[in-house]
Amino acid sequence: MGDPAGIGPEITPKALCDTRIANCCRPVVYGDIDRLRTGARLIDADMRFTPAASLEEAARVQNEVPVIDPAAECFDNLRWATPTAACGRAMAAYLHAAIDDAVAGRVAAIATGPINKHVLQMAGIHFSGHTEMLARHTGTTAYAMMLAGRRLRVVLATIHMPLHQVSRSLTTPGIESIIALTEHALKTRFGLPEPRIAVAGLNPHAGEMGLFGDEEETIIRPAINRQAERGIAVSGPHPPDTVFFAASQGRYDAVVAMYHDQGLGPFKMIHFEDGVNTTLGLPIIRTSVDHGTAYDIAGTGRASSASMAAAIIMAAQQARCQSRHPAGQPVSTPAWPRTSST
Amino acid sequence: MGDPAGIGPEITPKALCDTRIANCCRPVVYGDIDRLRTGARLIDADMRFTPAASLEEAARVQNEVPVIDPAAECFDNLRWATPTAACGRAMAAYLHAAIDDAVAGRVAAIATGPINKHVLQMAGIHFSGHTEMLARHTGTTAYAMMLAGRRLRVVLATIHMPLHQVSRSLTTPGIESIIALTEHALKTRFGLPEPRIAVAGLNPHAGEMGLFGDEEETIIRPAINRQAERGIAVSGPHPPDTVFFAASQGRYDAVVAMYHDQGLGPFKMIHFEDGVNTTLGLPIIRTSVDHGTAYDIAGTGRASSASMAAAIIMAAQQARCQSRHPAGQPVSTPAWPRTSST
Repeated sequence: MGDPAGIGPEITPKALCDTRIANCCRPVVYGDIDRLRTGARLIDADMRFTPAASLEEAARVQNEVPVIDPAAECFDNLRWATPTAACGRAMAAYLHAAIDDAVAGRVAAIATGPINKHVLQMAGIHFSGHTEMLARHTGTTAYAMMLAGRRLRVVLATIHMPLHQVSRSLTTPGIESIIALTEHALKTRFGLPEPRIAVAGLNPHAGEMGLFGDEEETIIRPAINRQAERGIAVSGPHPPDTVFFAASQGRYDAVVAMYHDQGLGPFKMIHFEDGVNTTLGLPIIRTSVDHGTAYDIAGTGRASSASMAAAIIMAAQQARCQSRHPAGQPVSTPAWPRTSST
Repeated sequence: MGDPAGIGPEITPKALCDTRIANCCRPVVYGDIDRLRTGARLIDADMRFTPAASLEEAARVQNEVPVIDPAAECFDNLRWATPTAACGRAMAAYLHAAIDDAVAGRVAAIATGPINKHVLQMAGIHFSGHTEMLARHTGTTAYAMMLAGRRLRVVLATIHMPLHQVSRSLTTPGIESIIALTEHALKTRFGLPEPRIAVAGLNPHAGEMGLFGDEEETIIRPAINRQAERGIAVSGPHPPDTVFFAASQGRYDAVVAMYHDQGLGPFKMIHFEDGVNTTLGLPIIRTSVDHGTAYDIAGTGRASSASMAAAIIMAAQQARCQSRHPAGQPVSTPAWPRTSST
């Protein structure tokens, strides 16, 4: 459900009304049932939530959506857009319970609603994002964030760090790991037997033969070459201002971007509403909305549930794809220490 | 015409066949007439070129397109995609002659075809781009590159430099200058009486309150505040991954981007074919194709002329708009030393 004070309690029922979801999975919500019922009333959702003490109990629920609440905080007096430390504790509890159930195989996949890292900090929980919490809680060191939509998939080599740190944070083994994670995910979770991966350069025009930086030649190209030698269809470094467009036209199945805004700026131009964030390299399947808690519109019923619905559907699709794939377990790749993970 | 060995000699006649151009301006080409005729034959263009020794002579040409050749290099044996030092000398001569005629008021505006800086270097001419040559030749110190299309306009605060230099190249007076140039151009050359300008942050999520960098608070916000005090409708710093989408939805008339790929990646997602590069702050009107010499397809007739045609039409529109505007002359702004200009 994400943050009880954000749009999560609204977009969760809104998304669950989408008939495509009932057709592809059996949803269970980790969250606060009163907030969810309030959210459902806000948008006149034609659905009912039922409390469930366990997944076994949830499995017996018919025609309603079971809600598990591992936090058991009281939000009776909570106002929209005014998060408290209790919200921070609750959103972490929802996430950790869902992770534990996914790791144990009791749920097939997780789709996460929007959280806010400042609210986590109010509860004494310090992470730069959802992805880093998932990595830590599952003991994963080699992981990557993918933004996925119908026309474009982008994987980030670095995520939440100041721009001036990006250049020195890139390493050849790190980029190799990202390429390997991307190839494995495209095969096992997206059902593409021979995925084509493009790697973006770091600098304008991919350095233009050294005129505007040399990371393309010293760091990025060696990573591409080594992964290409493994038989992966990977190319680059490509000029960062055109490679995303080329991929959106069908030329590549995914683009490895060197930093957050290099990838997300182009991605959001065409998938602002329906983009899905999914984490590669985890032992579990996890998708997420690709937006935040949107406090500016929380409680108005205006928030779009398109990304939440797309995240749930993609989680189900990945689970189905992985169950069919012989090598569905995570690839072993070199661990890459990330400045952003702690 | 741009580089005689690139796609310039093809896309120039292809664009000039566009009837919208004859309806908005009287074109004269600075280039090599034999290359242009070869290019026109490649694409079966229904048009003729005529040599003109001067603009006076060009003005008397009827039903054909006059060509001025200030370079007078011989390209009889030039092969497509194999540029020589003579190509470098020629493209510089075309540009400088056009600039001189524009500064003197003999032409209303310039639209430039694609050049290649490595070929310029073969001719001993060292610039990191077209824009920098124009600034130098017109003695302009405060200038900016705008990428403009129907749905989005982007202005760059830094252009051709390695990514790791961007943070230390940004200054508050520099960003102020870019905001002022943008506002002036939107008023005088795009006919928007009350332009709305968004300024992007530098870091992911615009620094997220200092978590991922502080340039937003130390450098960018003070520039926005000072220009807002001048009465400009300028806002930000906005998260760089969503502000371009917001602008493309009509919320802003232009976005000031902090660096090359921050702005161009999103821009090219929706204006890859028809985007126009225009230079703000020059004493003359100048637009350009927003692509390169495309040696990989030069001589095949396959290159799209959409950007060239859009550049010529936008040059004519800016000239008409400026002639109507009472404050059509360039704004006086603080000079900003740029690492990329020499």
